[in-house]
Amino acid sequence: MKLPAHVDEQTFANRLERFRIETPSWGYGDTGTRFGKFLQDAAATTIEEKLADAAEVHRYTGCCPAVAVHVLWDFAPGIDLRSVGQSAEELGLCIGSINPNVFQDQCYKYGSVANRDPAIRRRAVRHILDSVEMGRQVGSTLLSLWFADGTNYPGQASIRQRKRWFQDALRQVHDALPNDMTMLVEYKPFEPAFYHTDIADWGMAYVFAKQAGPRAKVLVDTGHHLPGCNIEHIVAFLIDEGMLGGFHFNDRKYADDDLTMGSIDPYQLFRIFHEIVGAEVERGHDLDIAYMVDQSHNLKPKIEAMIQTVMSAQEHLAKALLVDHGALARAQEREDLVLAERILKDAYETDVRLLLAEWRQRRNLPADPLLAFRESGYAERVAKNRRARKPASTDRYA
Amino acid sequence: MKLPAHVDEQTFANRLERFRIETPSWGYGDTGTRFGKFLQDAAATTIEEKLADAAEVHRYTGCCPAVAVHVLWDFAPGIDLRSVGQSAEELGLCIGSINPNVFQDQCYKYGSVANRDPAIRRRAVRHILDSVEMGRQVGSTLLSLWFADGTNYPGQASIRQRKRWFQDALRQVHDALPNDMTMLVEYKPFEPAFYHTDIADWGMAYVFAKQAGPRAKVLVDTGHHLPGCNIEHIVAFLIDEGMLGGFHFNDRKYADDDLTMGSIDPYQLFRIFHEIVGAEVERGHDLDIAYMVDQSHNLKPKIEAMIQTVMSAQEHLAKALLVDHGALARAQEREDLVLAERILKDAYETDVRLLLAEWRQRRNLPADPLLAFRESGYAERVAKNRRARKPASTDRYA
Amino acid sequence: MKLPAHVDEQTFANRLERFRIETPSWGYGDTGTRFGKFLQDAAATTIEEKLADAAEVHRYTGCCPAVAVHVLWDFAPGIDLRSVGQSAEELGLCIGSINPNVFQDQCYKYGSVANRDPAIRRRAVRHILDSVEMGRQVGSTLLSLWFADGTNYPGQASIRQRKRWFQDALRQVHDALPNDMTMLVEYKPFEPAFYHTDIADWGMAYVFAKQAGPRAKVLVDTGHHLPGCNIEHIVAFLIDEGMLGGFHFNDRKYADDDLTMGSIDPYQLFRIFHEIVGAEVERGHDLDIAYMVDQSHNLKPKIEAMIQTVMSAQEHLAKALLVDHGALARAQEREDLVLAERILKDAYETDVRLLLAEWRQRRNLPADPLLAFRESGYAERVAKNRRARKPASTDRYA
Amino acid sequence: MKLPAHVDEQTFANRLERFRIETPSWGYGDTGTRFGKFLQDAAATTIEEKLADAAEVHRYTGCCPAVAVHVLWDFAPGIDLRSVGQSAEELGLCIGSINPNVFQDQCYKYGSVANRDPAIRRRAVRHILDSVEMGRQVGSTLLSLWFADGTNYPGQASIRQRKRWFQDALRQVHDALPNDMTMLVEYKPFEPAFYHTDIADWGMAYVFAKQAGPRAKVLVDTGHHLPGCNIEHIVAFLIDEGMLGGFHFNDRKYADDDLTMGSIDPYQLFRIFHEIVGAEVERGHDLDIAYMVDQSHNLKPKIEAMIQTVMSAQEHLAKALLVDHGALARAQEREDLVLAERILKDAYETDVRLLLAEWRQRRNLPADPLLAFRESGYAERVAKNRRARKPASTDRYA
Repeated sequence: MKLPAHVDEQTFANRLERFRIETPSWGYGDTGTRFGKFLQDAAATTIEEKLADAAEVHRYTGCCPAVAVHVLWDFAPGIDLRSVGQSAEELGLCIGSINPNVFQDQCYKYGSVANRDPAIRRRAVRHILDSVEMGRQVGSTLLSLWFADGTNYPGQASIRQRKRWFQDALRQVHDALPNDMTMLVEYKPFEPAFYHTDIADWGMAYVFAKQAGPRAKVLVDTGHHLPGCNIEHIVAFLIDEGMLGGFHFNDRKYADDDLTMGSIDPYQLFRIFHEIVGAEVERGHDLDIAYMVDQSHNLKPKIEAMIQTVMSAQEHLAKALLVDHGALARAQEREDLVLAERILKDAYETDVRLLLAEWRQRRNLPADPLLAFRESGYAERVAKNRRARKPASTDRYA
Repeated sequence: MKLPAHVDEQTFANRLERFRIETPSWGYGDTGTRFGKFLQDAAATTIEEKLADAAEVHRYTGCCPAVAVHVLWDFAPGIDLRSVGQSAEELGLCIGSINPNVFQDQCYKYGSVANRDPAIRRRAVRHILDSVEMGRQVGSTLLSLWFADGTNYPGQASIRQRKRWFQDALRQVHDALPNDMTMLVEYKPFEPAFYHTDIADWGMAYVFAKQAGPRAKVLVDTGHHLPGCNIEHIVAFLIDEGMLGGFHFNDRKYADDDLTMGSIDPYQLFRIFHEIVGAEVERGHDLDIAYMVDQSHNLKPKIEAMIQTVMSAQEHLAKALLVDHGALARAQEREDLVLAERILKDAYETDVRLLLAEWRQRRNLPADPLLAFRESGYAERVAKNRRARKPASTDRYA
Repeated sequence: MKLPAHVDEQTFANRLERFRIETPSWGYGDTGTRFGKFLQDAAATTIEEKLADAAEVHRYTGCCPAVAVHVLWDFAPGIDLRSVGQSAEELGLCIGSINPNVFQDQCYKYGSVANRDPAIRRRAVRHILDSVEMGRQVGSTLLSLWFADGTNYPGQASIRQRKRWFQDALRQVHDALPNDMTMLVEYKPFEPAFYHTDIADWGMAYVFAKQAGPRAKVLVDTGHHLPGCNIEHIVAFLIDEGMLGGFHFNDRKYADDDLTMGSIDPYQLFRIFHEIVGAEVERGHDLDIAYMVDQSHNLKPKIEAMIQTVMSAQEHLAKALLVDHGALARAQEREDLVLAERILKDAYETDVRLLLAEWRQRRNLPADPLLAFRESGYAERVAKNRRARKPASTDRYA
Repeated sequence: MKLPAHVDEQTFANRLERFRIETPSWGYGDTGTRFGKFLQDAAATTIEEKLADAAEVHRYTGCCPAVAVHVLWDFAPGIDLRSVGQSAEELGLCIGSINPNVFQDQCYKYGSVANRDPAIRRRAVRHILDSVEMGRQVGSTLLSLWFADGTNYPGQASIRQRKRWFQDALRQVHDALPNDMTMLVEYKPFEPAFYHTDIADWGMAYVFAKQAGPRAKVLVDTGHHLPGCNIEHIVAFLIDEGMLGGFHFNDRKYADDDLTMGSIDPYQLFRIFHEIVGAEVERGHDLDIAYMVDQSHNLKPKIEAMIQTVMSAQEHLAKALLVDHGALARAQEREDLVLAERILKDAYETDVRLLLAEWRQRRNLPADPLLAFRESGYAERVAKNRRARKPASTDRYA
């Protein structure tokens, strides 16, 4: 399949080639909702299984070498961290972002770094600093910070006091970063049952990151916005400010749904990539952005869902790479809204699936990673092996 | 404290007196979020403990004799149901609505009454019919139906096919209702991770209820609406259609937050009661509506939160009873928007706390149920007793 | 370009051929926002100009013979209505839906058919009945009802009383319909500055239509929903109930934006068409749905925007016609979410632009209606002619 | 009526006394929606009439000496600006914020300071600089900047390019400010028909203001937020950053409704005041915040609506002044959510109407400004005088 005349084939292929997506270890395990978990036989339990599954995703897609790890869920106390990094390496993987967990333990009931109790604030900061050190040991250069801090009811706490505790904690963490580590500050407007979350929007993450230091950037989770929010605008703004550190990709219909990227609003995903590609074309080099998946598939098979996600990401990046920037600029110059919009849509409407299939084959990858994985029988094999270790169904009225 | 001249003291007191709120058994146990549960020592575990706690709420408020039960969570297999009803009776309580559970078992992964598998549809319907029978045995006259059915992704299922399965199931259930039982159909626009929920709004619940039969009504959960929705309009519309069966009361800031009633938008709560009182004034009798609480307090102490809820409900009903309907009608007649709004606000702005304290004392109830309960030491006592049986903390990095 | 093997070429072409879209007369004139209008030289002023412009859209697209008319804006008092119908006919057009206007005159300040003043209610109903008669004279079989009725503040009026006035009015209108006329009831959750709109959602429109009579159906304006609403679910539900009368197509980013169809969320548009096509495949015949455009282009050139809209509609219908319903059903049978979603996406991702270009050429239509219209010079010609009659700029600080 | 023991009477009265609210000149004239205006006989037309009406609001409330002016709407070319300031002074008023208008002229069709055309960008900046100078002449120390800039469709313009034009323009304006003038940057997530607005949220306004210079602050319009947004959180954050410049007060049910302050969500208004009062208590002095009204009353009588607004603002500030900060802090220290919330609610639930009536009477103001104004007959008198100059009704089918 031929590319449009305005697209240079090598530039297109090279940019796709350089596009790496980090998958999360927790995306390979069973995840649940407030009612419990719907279990899958093939879901991974240990860090070894998660890495093995991630390696499958990388085997079939060729672009997912890095795996994000969750300190609490992945690193049992006493674990030999260097061996984790080594296990990853043997599978052709590396450890991506390191994710501390300061939201699950009972002590964090009223918050972590913004907890009123100084002992708990210290404990939370210490855990993050420990995570930085663990990250160093496993070869990670990315610290990804998400907090479930906030309050459930008006009056519960002083919003301004909590803000200052956050500023203190993030400065401490930044001070302790190795020189080659970037710290990403994630924001989220709401958690179930919350009245306020301490880092509610990109503006708060931006202010906190600015105040923490130069290696702190903003992390955009595509599902963490209020209804109607123009996410690509935020992306463009942060890029221009040099403050966009990375993405947690997922999609949503209503709230924080953690659905597969592009499954609900694919055109929005394209517009996000268009802002990135537009800035890269302008600057003549790639932006330094960490592309990470953060989804929760309680019904879809984990590895398949991840491969589907990666394919969707590549497709929408590819579409963004097809935009005719010259023609777009000329239409914009004339305030020709109809044509400018159509030039964008021309790229979006292009069916890139065959293009990508051919590009994959040139890289000795399966044309269709999803079907190739299905045919491999991996899922059935691990399901058989892992099933035995799962808890029996708790169904009662069967 | 004196009532405004346009309010008849006896009418006011009598209407408050007749106002009953059902509390849910599950509101007394530990509840969690997707990350796990923040545990409370005093939280109830068994149906006996839940009833005991509910009896406390009734003891201090005098208006919560009925307790909603959840079949799966409250009725262990082989439980002697009549003894449950008897336990309730001994505590001065009765069993309120009966709530089947067709969303938690692994078999309901892809839905219950709208599951593609006819065996699972039958199982779900059978469980609901069993619940009807259990309800009969424990003396309940209210079947409360909430479904977590829906799909997570576009294409997953035929929306219309699932609709027809719902119609079939609800008709079957209606056919099996005892003559004195009402069936309430709840709606909800979204669940986390869902693309569509089968009963998404009041319109769908209305159509399903109409088609099921005359004893089916709509259940309005105040937290189950899209942003900006005018809930009191829906309430007024359903009242006028004779289709409002009951409420699940709670409040929300963003999504489905299950916060304490009136904790976020108390004026909306007042406006809902105003629609009810307005219709009752017009008709000269109470509307037959089941007022039920459905909240999830992961941080607030359970019994206190419930008493706070009940006091909030009474306060907002009392305010609605203070509206000067004559003056309001006259202002409306003149299209005097400013005065009409002010007449409504005059009632809302009235501080009814003292009024209610005096009314409670006349009924030999504590003027301040919340403080009275606190002073009783009940919470500390049960915490001490129940603590032993709780699982130890799973905190790891302590 | 070849169609996928599972699509019958003739069925595909025939369905597209039968797809007609009605364009609105008011879409060809200058429209504004609350701050005033940004004027376009080429915008139409008279009904003759609007029909001439609509004829252009039909000339280049071949699928827009019907033009919706707005009684107040298009029919000057004393106008010879049969001559309007005749003018349309001479241009190869017909008059589509007839739209009464009961929201613009000062008398409707507090509402039309739900106005407290019986004289104004009668006037509003009389105007609608007059519109029915005018519709009959111009050959319309569709009465399209949209109301700006509602209240701005709590307390302003009795919601239930206004509901009953609506029920009365709609019954009266239905009683007066000629046998071949359908009455469409539109809903809308909000208008700027409103506290409540009398027909706020599809459920209210459904109840009103059901009570009015068998020739009343629900009109879905795609932009008239609360954030997060699953519109295709409503569409599927109404189809299954036999109550979907028609669409007002447009798109939106935040509120009621009246943007070009598919310009913001094209995948949602596809999913809406998928629900329609799915029902048609099941029934073996087209659904009787009126497809109408209702957009407001204050910046885009009117005719171009309309042609772009029509092309977008055809593209998304075409994509929906490419869905492999057999394969989809089989994937659904196996609860294979990943594949089911992918089958839907396969159709959506297909680039149908060339398919449609070839199909147009076989019908002796320009392959690219938008560019063909641009090249015709029509817009420049009418701009020159119409410019003279426009009011001079009111700019002050130039 | 007695204040609670924890409130110092003099402190309470003094803070209320220092609370000034600026009313907008445009709030006294007829305003409309996209369909046109519903006219009021008493609505003001000229700047003299607007000032006269504003003087009435100040006469009855005693706290509204400043009037915001809109350069385009209030200052006819060639107007003697010093005479405007003098007229205000004679009426006991002063000119408050100066509001340039760079959104209404046809030249601003594609934006003002972010217009692609450098001539229009210069014109817009020049108009703002002219406004600064006009402000100086009329004695204003506040430049209030709101822009309707943005795009209607994806692809229409480069978001980043427009951002840079905004940065340039705001720096230029800041450079030209007199030493005693503050510049307020307003944000807004959407305008009808927009795809993106250039200053979409507080974060963007914050960054622009920071980059413009030390006399630039953020202006919070309470109606300009996405659904679910926690506005008091933004307020608290900006206060702590020293970046909260002022408010445009209004309320909303769905979108940008410009309804009377507190008419829809009064508890949110209280929580906003609580954040302000909390910071003032902590610092021991008033925050330097401009409190301004920006509402549009198309149905309510203008002056009455303004008086109602001012009374509502005073009531909610008064409630916030009743919060027992000591007790609140102690409850928070114990993580006593139920009591902390209740302490907040205790203040909110207090009926302050009588308190305020007594306080007004001590200041020789009418106890009930709204009724006192009604009784004055002013509205009827000006209606009679102004009616003659209004355009005749354009109703057609009367």
